[in-house]
Amino acid sequence: MALSFELLTEPKPVGPRRGRITTRHGTIETPVFMPVGTQATVKTLTPRDLQEVGAEIILSNTYHLYLRPGEDLVAEAGGLHSFMSWGRPILTDSGGFQVFSLAGLRKITEEGVEFRSHLDGSKHFLSPERAIQVENALGADIIMCFDECIPYPADYQYAKDSTARTSRWAARCKRAHQRPEEQALFGIVQGGMYKDLRKRSAEELVELDFPGYAVGGLSVGEPKGLMLELLENTTPFLPVDKPRYLMGVGSLDYVVEGIDRGIDMFDCVLPTRMARHGTAFTSQGRVVVKNAEYARDFSPLDPECDCYVCQNFSRAYLRHLFAAREFTGLRLLSYHNLYFLLAVMKEIRRSIEAGQFKEVKKKYSSYR
Amino acid sequence: MALSFELLTEPKPVGPRRGRITTRHGTIETPVFMPVGTQATVKTLTPRDLQEVGAEIILSNTYHLYLRPGEDLVAEAGGLHSFMSWGRPILTDSGGFQVFSLAGLRKITEEGVEFRSHLDGSKHFLSPERAIQVENALGADIIMCFDECIPYPADYQYAKDSTARTSRWAARCKRAHQRPEEQALFGIVQGGMYKDLRKRSAEELVELDFPGYAVGGLSVGEPKGLMLELLENTTPFLPVDKPRYLMGVGSLDYVVEGIDRGIDMFDCVLPTRMARHGTAFTSQGRVVVKNAEYARDFSPLDPECDCYVCQNFSRAYLRHLFAAREFTGLRLLSYHNLYFLLAVMKEIRRSIEAGQFKEVKKKYSSYR
Repeated sequence: MALSFELLTEPKPVGPRRGRITTRHGTIETPVFMPVGTQATVKTLTPRDLQEVGAEIILSNTYHLYLRPGEDLVAEAGGLHSFMSWGRPILTDSGGFQVFSLAGLRKITEEGVEFRSHLDGSKHFLSPERAIQVENALGADIIMCFDECIPYPADYQYAKDSTARTSRWAARCKRAHQRPEEQALFGIVQGGMYKDLRKRSAEELVELDFPGYAVGGLSVGEPKGLMLELLENTTPFLPVDKPRYLMGVGSLDYVVEGIDRGIDMFDCVLPTRMARHGTAFTSQGRVVVKNAEYARDFSPLDPECDCYVCQNFSRAYLRHLFAAREFTGLRLLSYHNLYFLLAVMKEIRRSIEAGQFKEVKKKYSSYR
Repeated sequence: MALSFELLTEPKPVGPRRGRITTRHGTIETPVFMPVGTQATVKTLTPRDLQEVGAEIILSNTYHLYLRPGEDLVAEAGGLHSFMSWGRPILTDSGGFQVFSLAGLRKITEEGVEFRSHLDGSKHFLSPERAIQVENALGADIIMCFDECIPYPADYQYAKDSTARTSRWAARCKRAHQRPEEQALFGIVQGGMYKDLRKRSAEELVELDFPGYAVGGLSVGEPKGLMLELLENTTPFLPVDKPRYLMGVGSLDYVVEGIDRGIDMFDCVLPTRMARHGTAFTSQGRVVVKNAEYARDFSPLDPECDCYVCQNFSRAYLRHLFAAREFTGLRLLSYHNLYFLLAVMKEIRRSIEAGQFKEVKKKYSSYR
């Protein structure tokens, strides 16, 4: 079997859960945050860095790897793990999100999506079958169904039609999947901003019996309250004993809300993207270290952090690296931000084990 | 004493030498190559990387640090070692080379050089006294006199006047130096492309009795044969028992020639700059790994190299990182290139100890 999931806390339909996912490339303690390595590298970092910051699984993007260097090349290298020298679990998305984000450059039919590459304008076609073929070639441990991420806002009829198509596509993905013993294929719940469609989507996917389920199309611009309400109308319809993944969410204030509603997995470019823009996550909140106010601040980024960056460099030095446009600055902040976020995830897991999640949630529910 | 130098091979006026420099931040085995960390960071790398690749001393640029973040800020941080978290030896140049490279933006008088910042056009003035004041604030183990690097070509009269001024400036630098017990001030031989001026410059500087001597103003565009001839007319006039540093030279074919003429220290941006442009140094010569020909080359950058990069990544992966414009690529190649060059320096040191430098020199004398 490609994946097994063990719940370490009492199985409940909702509420925070502590679990363990086992794949052929190792185990993942949940709730987990997955750093994003879009182009087969988490920007500025190496696999060794990722191990050091405590990453147990990373995400890579099928759309990008399909276009460059191409899934056949990755397969020839022995698959994504071998190509990028990351021996632990990997999840690939299906390319759906990226393709549907190419507004104006794409055409959707029942068969699939025709689109133009953002790199060179060349024409391409992804269908459920083709997406799974690419994901099979890349060889990640967890792969995702090809779905449509419904734009926000979208009217009811559009959302209903799209969600129904996503369910039909999910069935096609499952049939197309060639490596079910090595790669676990997750279904993706859509439904736009409509509670009844969310419920129906969840039920239709559960009917198809996937080894895990994702919640897609949330945190796309809607108010936080609406998002949480929709989440509450989704997770209760998913099986208790399968991992649940809230796609594209990694802001701590959302992560703790997701965990409270039974989510096990998260991913987001936020920590590394913010880092490259000079913003650090710390136990005292965000620190925009590139700002002039830190020019003579010789204290560490986060006095409570024991990462390589905080043990060795001052805010003043990091600020200097940003002012001088030195790559090393992007790298050090990326390292720290992931270390910080993954340390918080550890804290959260411990708190769930101890039955004290509520307090940790409070601590981070307004983290900015 | 700020610096001591021990010769491990027979003291001869010329020929390859094996030595050991001791500073307050540790020892340096010579001949040594010093990676360049212009803005208080070796581009894309961390101090930990530098330790791993085997760097024993690094160079940083006074001109750049004077402009940004300013020497007072670095001093406030506890000096350059503390600011950049590098506990081993550091050498700073004087800013002379950079200031004189600002053609059109500078005015030279006996007193010093007025110039405009390349960053914002603001007016600045560096004199021997001011340069040493900045270097004293930065706190490197080895600091350099403020000299004029004579442009190539330059007529005899210009070279003669400039070289005489460099000697007068060297005397002023020595008088201005406030931390002789902690920082060793090296003199810099100039003389342009004229043998008699090189000899005179060396003699005048030796008269001032520095703890080490650099040869400046070579490898600035002149033919290799001329450069070697000038070097042969310089090192014999320098004391045998003091370290000798050939500034700005780091190409292996030049390094072995320098060592053969009694040089102990080298620095150059070449290995890291080439890396950022996608070219790797390997035991098989240069590999322009960003080229399409490596797209499906799943062998390591250098099959004979045991560095982190060669042990973990293929040429195809590195090529992908460059094609996808991922910082990680710049970083991995910078790491490898320094590792490679510093490993060759080790090989060279062993060969000198074993009396077999000639063979190693032959191996690298046409390295491209």
